[in-house]
Amino acid sequence: MANIQTENNQNNAVQKKRLILVVSKGTIDMIYPALVLATTAPAMGMSVDIYFTFWGLKVLTKDGVNSVKIAPVGNPGMPMPNIVGVIPGMTKIASTMMKSKIEKFWPDVYEMIKMAKDSGVKLHACSPTMGFMDVKEEDLIPEVDDIVGASAFLSWASEPDALTLFI
Amino acid sequence: MANIQTENNQNNAVQKKRLILVVSKGTIDMIYPALVLATTAPAMGMSVDIYFTFWGLKVLTKDGVNSVKIAPVGNPGMPMPNIVGVIPGMTKIASTMMKSKIEKFWPDVYEMIKMAKDSGVKLHACSPTMGFMDVKEEDLIPEVDDIVGASAFLSWASEPDALTLFI
Amino acid sequence: MANIQTENNQNNAVQKKRLILVVSKGTIDMIYPALVLATTAPAMGMSVDIYFTFWGLKVLTKDGVNSVKIAPVGNPGMPMPNIVGVIPGMTKIASTMMKSKIEKFWPDVYEMIKMAKDSGVKLHACSPTMGFMDVKEEDLIPEVDDIVGASAFLSWASEPDALTLFI
Repeated sequence: MANIQTENNQNNAVQKKRLILVVSKGTIDMIYPALVLATTAPAMGMSVDIYFTFWGLKVLTKDGVNSVKIAPVGNPGMPMPNIVGVIPGMTKIASTMMKSKIEKFWPDVYEMIKMAKDSGVKLHACSPTMGFMDVKEEDLIPEVDDIVGASAFLSWASEPDALTLFI
Repeated sequence: MANIQTENNQNNAVQKKRLILVVSKGTIDMIYPALVLATTAPAMGMSVDIYFTFWGLKVLTKDGVNSVKIAPVGNPGMPMPNIVGVIPGMTKIASTMMKSKIEKFWPDVYEMIKMAKDSGVKLHACSPTMGFMDVKEEDLIPEVDDIVGASAFLSWASEPDALTLFI
Repeated sequence: MANIQTENNQNNAVQKKRLILVVSKGTIDMIYPALVLATTAPAMGMSVDIYFTFWGLKVLTKDGVNSVKIAPVGNPGMPMPNIVGVIPGMTKIASTMMKSKIEKFWPDVYEMIKMAKDSGVKLHACSPTMGFMDVKEEDLIPEVDDIVGASAFLSWASEPDALTLFI
């Protein structure tokens, strides 16, 4: 192996100027990849839109943003046998363990969202998911920019200048 | 928060004219995002191809299309403790609960597939997955257009005019 | 249904010449779609970069590359009730079952990685994930090309000639 770069390498340049992320899962391990990209891209000159849908929408709620969880079962990457994972309370313990580990490297979820907002990142809640998930407009954190449908998403994502990732 | 748009907003326009979706997971919560996009895009002037692979392929079978499930364990977004989720029958109960909820907002999976087909959406079964999943040609629903390999998918997905999402 | 193509169809051509894959999950069923694309694309004239992050990073470690697992719980696509899935040892049994089945169709994970390397595919380890996952440089398999951050990934992925998929 030859080459190690740091996160802050200044030689990287982007050719597309817009990053569109779909956040469809609500677990810590899938939220962080989105938030790391969303907070990295603005410094490289990209505008960023994040479209929160299905389980991802929960992250945009006042209750959800501070309680993003990880499942201790069904995840062979976790060092915990499934039989332990189903004991009541283990989701909380596994989530706390992973959070305390993640937070050595990155700020917590809400802090990352605020950092992203300060860099101009736009947060969009998926309108059809709102009803399906019983999320009301007043349940959303104030950082949400708007509530839009799939057609708005397709409109941005289909721009030739957009890099779109479904996470 | 400023702005609420409805799903049917007519002001959205697309610049890329082709949407390519890979459906790799076979659970309700990952099928619906694909089907919602696939039924929204044609009205915006996009042609749509869906490539069903791995767990996603099951959705294209006669047995699978009416029995798409959701896992009640390992999903911290579900309001159900893991210890309950492993009780035999809970996958069925959780799936029924989620289905009855989803169907307040969208038609069922097979109905969505038929709507998509009526709009010209093409459904492709992944050929190498067929063998691996023990799915035979006669097991597929008649709405399937063809059985193709990864090279066909890469050929479409690499068109400059294509927006490609791996779901 | 009309048309069946084989994997080796020579009529498929690609217009974008670069394939960028993000591998964020560490389970067999999500590693194989990436490796199948990575070993198919070079024959079609595409250069391929794979960025391993979060759970995906484990696949690049000496310990991880030969022990990629599948979860027997939380996966309604598996023919195994959740109550059986939590019995100690079932992750191993489910993984062995799936591996022996997959290996009728494709080589094992490490063999696929070596095939990809022989075709010029580049393997990148995500630098911020290294710390978070307690993976040290000496833990990585020698096939890894470099350790880079999110900004390097965004730089490649934003090339107009790149097809980028988040798996």
